[in-house]
Amino acid sequence: MLHSIEFIQKFINEEIDRQPFEGYPPMLYAPIAYTMHQGGKRMRPALTLLACEMFGGDIHKALYPAIGIEIFHNFTLVHDDIMDQAPLRRNRETVYKKWNTNVAILSGDTMFALAYDYLAKCEPELLARILPLFNRTAIEVCEGQQLDMEFETRHDVTIDEYIEMIRLKTAVLPATALKTGAILANAPDNDTDLIYTVGINVGLAFQLIDDVLDVYAEQDKFGKSIGNDILTQKKTFLYLKAIELANEHQRHELDTCFSQSDIPTDEKIHRVIQVYDRLNVKEEAYRLVDEYYKKAFNAFDAINVAKGAKSELEKFIKKLASRTF
Amino acid sequence: MLHSIEFIQKFINEEIDRQPFEGYPPMLYAPIAYTMHQGGKRMRPALTLLACEMFGGDIHKALYPAIGIEIFHNFTLVHDDIMDQAPLRRNRETVYKKWNTNVAILSGDTMFALAYDYLAKCEPELLARILPLFNRTAIEVCEGQQLDMEFETRHDVTIDEYIEMIRLKTAVLPATALKTGAILANAPDNDTDLIYTVGINVGLAFQLIDDVLDVYAEQDKFGKSIGNDILTQKKTFLYLKAIELANEHQRHELDTCFSQSDIPTDEKIHRVIQVYDRLNVKEEAYRLVDEYYKKAFNAFDAINVAKGAKSELEKFIKKLASRTF
Repeated sequence: MLHSIEFIQKFINEEIDRQPFEGYPPMLYAPIAYTMHQGGKRMRPALTLLACEMFGGDIHKALYPAIGIEIFHNFTLVHDDIMDQAPLRRNRETVYKKWNTNVAILSGDTMFALAYDYLAKCEPELLARILPLFNRTAIEVCEGQQLDMEFETRHDVTIDEYIEMIRLKTAVLPATALKTGAILANAPDNDTDLIYTVGINVGLAFQLIDDVLDVYAEQDKFGKSIGNDILTQKKTFLYLKAIELANEHQRHELDTCFSQSDIPTDEKIHRVIQVYDRLNVKEEAYRLVDEYYKKAFNAFDAINVAKGAKSELEKFIKKLASRTF
Repeated sequence: MLHSIEFIQKFINEEIDRQPFEGYPPMLYAPIAYTMHQGGKRMRPALTLLACEMFGGDIHKALYPAIGIEIFHNFTLVHDDIMDQAPLRRNRETVYKKWNTNVAILSGDTMFALAYDYLAKCEPELLARILPLFNRTAIEVCEGQQLDMEFETRHDVTIDEYIEMIRLKTAVLPATALKTGAILANAPDNDTDLIYTVGINVGLAFQLIDDVLDVYAEQDKFGKSIGNDILTQKKTFLYLKAIELANEHQRHELDTCFSQSDIPTDEKIHRVIQVYDRLNVKEEAYRLVDEYYKKAFNAFDAINVAKGAKSELEKFIKKLASRTF
């Protein structure tokens, strides 16, 4: 019997809450406990455990590496929040805001090392398989963040570049989470490559849906404020596609709304959405989301395990697709 | 035949210079190449290779992990320079100063991941031995940096606390460099523990000598400006020992010099040195240095390899002791 998604999420949350994240000097560890003990969906470690079990592995043996991946993810948020000067995350003060930049740098660095410490808690012969994957991924996530920052001041970002940026910044980590779970179940290389492909495509789809929801979600369901990407002039898929399809007048309208700070925020968002609607960029985004999901499920179907063993992970991926997770 | 120290240093420097440290986006990698390709003594990777060869290992098999340790060391400098707001290092602009804080944070993070990537380039069964050691060390170095920052604003730092801080901030990494070399030569645990002890004690002695040289070195030989620790109010061993031994008048004199910014710098340094001289704190420091060196050589002598195999590492440690390295 496979464990249910609900069981796995609860299991991960309880186990993370049990980790003390304490040490000397206490000031170094307080921001780590603050960051790690705030609950959350734990999507990435859930993917690790679900993949591990799908390939017949024991979720208890994948637990610590899964927690390592979650610590790494949270480390990137702590440092990103400094770089983006973001005061809030999930309605709580970010580490650099609550303490200061130095604390956020150093506690973040410690989390990075801790992530490796948890990751290393597996069998030696499996460690040699998961470590190079994790290293490459950690580097790629940094590359993605660098691109994201560079795009802020560039005016010639292409959609291909944008997709590559979100692949690096957001898709490689869930893909690695899945592949790590598969490796910890001792799955063959062919299958671990397939599940990595699943993760990349689900990750890309997930980010594109996020771009759409930022503009089109019902405020109360989304949990973030609507139109934030427009106000912060983020070059999302919607924006880049709109620029690509726009006539001269529409391009001028987008430029005006994105660059002029004296337009009231509500009006700005409204005017940008009008252009987006005219150009059907939401539909374009969903077309691409469907493409990625097709690729994901093609790879998923090709994985060489009994159909029954796939059920929980399949359910989870569909939840991610419908954003009911 | 053992390779000479000179050969090993040249070998490491050439191999590091051969690493491109290039990638996409280039802006992320430029500060990494800038940091890594500036030569230097490469003390830590040299320790790894010397230890590896002492235990009969092949230095070529230890090269990449040794480079990983050097990348890690340089990563800590990049982040420390942000936290300490240090504009110069070895007479060159620091990364955060030459680029900006965000670049220094993110390129630093990438270096941290790269360090692990190089470290992982060894045999799987050895990886499982060196990785937990490296993880613990990385965490300890962060703890040391945190303590160092906390001591800046504390007025009750004890000498024991100071020694623990420099153990974490500066001694554990050379110790780990040595132990990693020993493990890569497949040395038994007892010997790898002994060489770690050698490293800790040499590292502590090295830092104490540094404290002394900051005040007493001949300007042109030291390569840093004299009295810098006094001007930045660093609570070094000399200062803490002086506070411990001082009478009321001397303590008042130290307090005045350390806290008042309107005293000309030359006068300030001169007055502090007068108190130090009266209290013989330089001699106290060297007494402690000798103690650490005795402990280091006791452990070194107990290592179970032929005396001839120890010669190059022994020479190197003695060079470190006399600061002729």
